[in-house]
Amino acid sequence: MLAEIITIGDEILIGQIVDSNSAFIGKELNDIGVDVYQITSISDDKKHILNALDEAKQRVDIVIITGGLGPTKDDITKHTICEYFDDKLIQNDEVLVHVEKLFAKYISTPISDVNKQQAMVPSTSRVLMNQYGTAPGMWLEKDNTVFISMPGVPYEMKGLMKSQVLPGLQKRFDRPYILHKTVLTYGMGESAIAEKIESWEDNLPSFIKLAYLPNLGRVRLRLSARGKNKAVLEEAIKINVDQLETLIGDIIVGFEENETIEKKIGSLLVDQGKTLAIAESCTGGKIAQSFTINAGASAYFKGAVVTYATASKIDVLGIDPAVIKEYTVTSAEVAEAMALAAKDKFKSDYAIATTGNAGPTKGDGDVEVGTVFVAIATPDSVFSKKYVFSNLRERTIGKAVNKAFELILGVLTKNL
Amino acid sequence: MLAEIITIGDEILIGQIVDSNSAFIGKELNDIGVDVYQITSISDDKKHILNALDEAKQRVDIVIITGGLGPTKDDITKHTICEYFDDKLIQNDEVLVHVEKLFAKYISTPISDVNKQQAMVPSTSRVLMNQYGTAPGMWLEKDNTVFISMPGVPYEMKGLMKSQVLPGLQKRFDRPYILHKTVLTYGMGESAIAEKIESWEDNLPSFIKLAYLPNLGRVRLRLSARGKNKAVLEEAIKINVDQLETLIGDIIVGFEENETIEKKIGSLLVDQGKTLAIAESCTGGKIAQSFTINAGASAYFKGAVVTYATASKIDVLGIDPAVIKEYTVTSAEVAEAMALAAKDKFKSDYAIATTGNAGPTKGDGDVEVGTVFVAIATPDSVFSKKYVFSNLRERTIGKAVNKAFELILGVLTKNL
Repeated sequence: MLAEIITIGDEILIGQIVDSNSAFIGKELNDIGVDVYQITSISDDKKHILNALDEAKQRVDIVIITGGLGPTKDDITKHTICEYFDDKLIQNDEVLVHVEKLFAKYISTPISDVNKQQAMVPSTSRVLMNQYGTAPGMWLEKDNTVFISMPGVPYEMKGLMKSQVLPGLQKRFDRPYILHKTVLTYGMGESAIAEKIESWEDNLPSFIKLAYLPNLGRVRLRLSARGKNKAVLEEAIKINVDQLETLIGDIIVGFEENETIEKKIGSLLVDQGKTLAIAESCTGGKIAQSFTINAGASAYFKGAVVTYATASKIDVLGIDPAVIKEYTVTSAEVAEAMALAAKDKFKSDYAIATTGNAGPTKGDGDVEVGTVFVAIATPDSVFSKKYVFSNLRERTIGKAVNKAFELILGVLTKNL
Repeated sequence: MLAEIITIGDEILIGQIVDSNSAFIGKELNDIGVDVYQITSISDDKKHILNALDEAKQRVDIVIITGGLGPTKDDITKHTICEYFDDKLIQNDEVLVHVEKLFAKYISTPISDVNKQQAMVPSTSRVLMNQYGTAPGMWLEKDNTVFISMPGVPYEMKGLMKSQVLPGLQKRFDRPYILHKTVLTYGMGESAIAEKIESWEDNLPSFIKLAYLPNLGRVRLRLSARGKNKAVLEEAIKINVDQLETLIGDIIVGFEENETIEKKIGSLLVDQGKTLAIAESCTGGKIAQSFTINAGASAYFKGAVVTYATASKIDVLGIDPAVIKEYTVTSAEVAEAMALAAKDKFKSDYAIATTGNAGPTKGDGDVEVGTVFVAIATPDSVFSKKYVFSNLRERTIGKAVNKAFELILGVLTKNL
């Protein structure tokens, strides 16, 4: 069962927005055993859309189209789909009532004719009601290929996928079973892992594929098994992951598909009944944000101080100015003092602190650009590590955050 | 001059990573007058890669390929390109020396045969040295179409684009001129803007295209002009943007291509010689991070406190527990007290504070999920606003952050 995702919108091609919708759709389709064969991003151009729809029909059974359904003049998807299906637009009363309700409830400007156009749909389409917006989804079929059109606004598209598209596809198609297992590692590079597991990889059964997904010092390994018999796949994945664990168990953080090192840290803290606080300088709030974006962070996360200016380290965290003067603001001593101060201020059990210079120019400190100190305060001690990353600002911030996660994870897993 | 971007890697199709590389490449190509006609994401599969290369050759002049150049077994791009060009791999001594140097300098594990394979390149390719990694870029040509292959690791790809690919394409091709102008607005929805500017939009010259890019309550308008004469395009863009400003000048934040509301706030603060501090609850560090990710934030950004737990609002910010008890933690009073406390603690001129419940369940407060109070402290006053967003956690956080930006921007622009 193959699918193609077609995203429509000049803004993707000229790089003004990143296409995150396709990743979401790909993942959700995979979860129900539909394989994404290709993702195609094209412009708001009638001929190009018509071509892309026709080419996709040759390749796949399911075509998922996003984008170009807004009320403005540059959005031409609906009219083009109508032309492709040799159909005409008719008013859908249910959608019209829904649009009117949304305007009455959420939108301060009065409803206009442009907005009412959202209720016009191809006469042969099945309407997929869009709970979160005015543009409905549409389900059409041609020569046994299913075409589904959704708005490009991420939360509207996600609502439609979950409530209508996925259930609809599960009902419409018999699907093979696809099982993914992700192994999240830390602290070892891609090629070093590859060498350690080479003979294991060579001996994987042919229905299991392995992929390496490296990102700022963390490598995920993904095993994908495909077949008709779910039990056989599960057993094969289990055996091979067990073998993998004997080879590289020391660098494996977790196995959950959506596992992240910050979620793992959170669940360890909750299990151990402990709390965390953070004092960030160069990472600027990114560590705090990584924890708080996950629901449930309040169970272990007390809070954070972002002391961006050197004066704030003194004024807000109460770091001794003499320590900063003696060791400079980017030093192990200051990082450790920040971690202890955060632990103390927030009355937490653990604390993470960062101080460094992510560049592009030398700031308050006088260290090399890319230098970061990460400190961890535990219930009874404090320690820090020095790292020298690159002169690429975002990369240095990202790596410093990951190193902070690694260090606190190392401490917490020792408690197990 | 048309280009196609082909990204290779199962991890994109199954949604394990978001394809941010294509957005970067699209933007950079546009800047030098190369139009991206299509972005195609395909699997690590030989037949699929060969097909995609051949189809792209029919469509475009430049094919940019990323991904699949790692040292591991699932990376087959190089061998497949070699087959497509009916070529063979030969060792490139310059790359080998570079790989050996990188290992000696940055990598703790010894260099292996797998790593040395990175120095093997198709004999007819021009090698593009990769400053940041072991996999070189490759430039090949077939029937007047240029094929460029780069690794998928974002910072390696970006380095190659800037240092070699873009200069190479500028030299190789005569290009038409493409001029983009982005207008960043806030506080008005897409269709309300569309109605206000309808007749202006209808009267745009045919060589200027308009796109609406909505995101969490901010709408960007992008004008794209294309032609041979740069001066004509610039003049036409200027006239039309001036007209646009007379229509919706009150909601326009800026015109820079990479303008963001947080950058605009930063530059206003710097111009006015003022500083900012933040106290975040439900937004969890995201406001701080939005400012600090930009280089130069230290010129105006003093720091932030993320008081996630209610106790931290008392312990760290010094909020009067009686105020929290009387009004609840999610209230205008607490938001304003947080803003004043942040201004005081960080000795800043302005402060932003947020308190709310992003869900999914009711937290320390007893308000409806999605309720957020945003407060702004100015040098001589404080005020707050209440918002009720949805029960979608990430969306509520994102909208609260944008509302905070809107409020502080409104205050700062009044000083102009």
